[in-house]
Amino acid sequence: MTTAPAVTPEPPYFAVIFTSVRRPEEAGYEATATRMLELARAQPGFLGVESAREDGLGITVSYWRDLDAIAAWKAHTEHRAAQASGRELWYHRYTVRVARVERAHGLEAR
Amino acid sequence: MTTAPAVTPEPPYFAVIFTSVRRPEEAGYEATATRMLELARAQPGFLGVESAREDGLGITVSYWRDLDAIAAWKAHTEHRAAQASGRELWYHRYTVRVARVERAHGLEAR
Repeated sequence: MTTAPAVTPEPPYFAVIFTSVRRPEEAGYEATATRMLELARAQPGFLGVESAREDGLGITVSYWRDLDAIAAWKAHTEHRAAQASGRELWYHRYTVRVARVERAHGLEAR
Repeated sequence: MTTAPAVTPEPPYFAVIFTSVRRPEEAGYEATATRMLELARAQPGFLGVESAREDGLGITVSYWRDLDAIAAWKAHTEHRAAQASGRELWYHRYTVRVARVERAHGLEAR
């Protein structure tokens, strides 16, 4: 599941930092992860997403216009089913952090 | 450069989300990255760090007690030298986002 660097507007906006350690169970994981990315991108207030997994540690950061957009995505029926599968099957542990992005800077591609 | 999931205190605290795309240039990168992790862990106000790279996209999230701790780490002499090498040698592009973690929840290891 590859993502490119997210291009986001000027702060403030919000980030959901999801860090996880997978279990060996694979059933349905990849298809659901791909579907959730696709679905997230279609949500109102979605600004971008970045994801990487290495040596079992996964980090997915999604960016949102406001807390209402995050709440609506969390409550989305299909996403709720995926969350349940995540808890029951796919993840050994995870943490979800909701954060307000206050400022940003960077190096442009060259 | 492997990190484990970070165990952080109750919010609020701060996160620095560093996402990057590397250039082919490798000279000094791994040694410096390892040293920066070691050095960051020793800074006052450091709470944890998580890092993963996949298909060229790297995500490192470090957690800090407050903005002063982040400013002090950004200004650390050895870190400033590493930042310069990053801009000049190692990174094709990157974004640094400073965010205030408002809330967190998760699934405990089982």
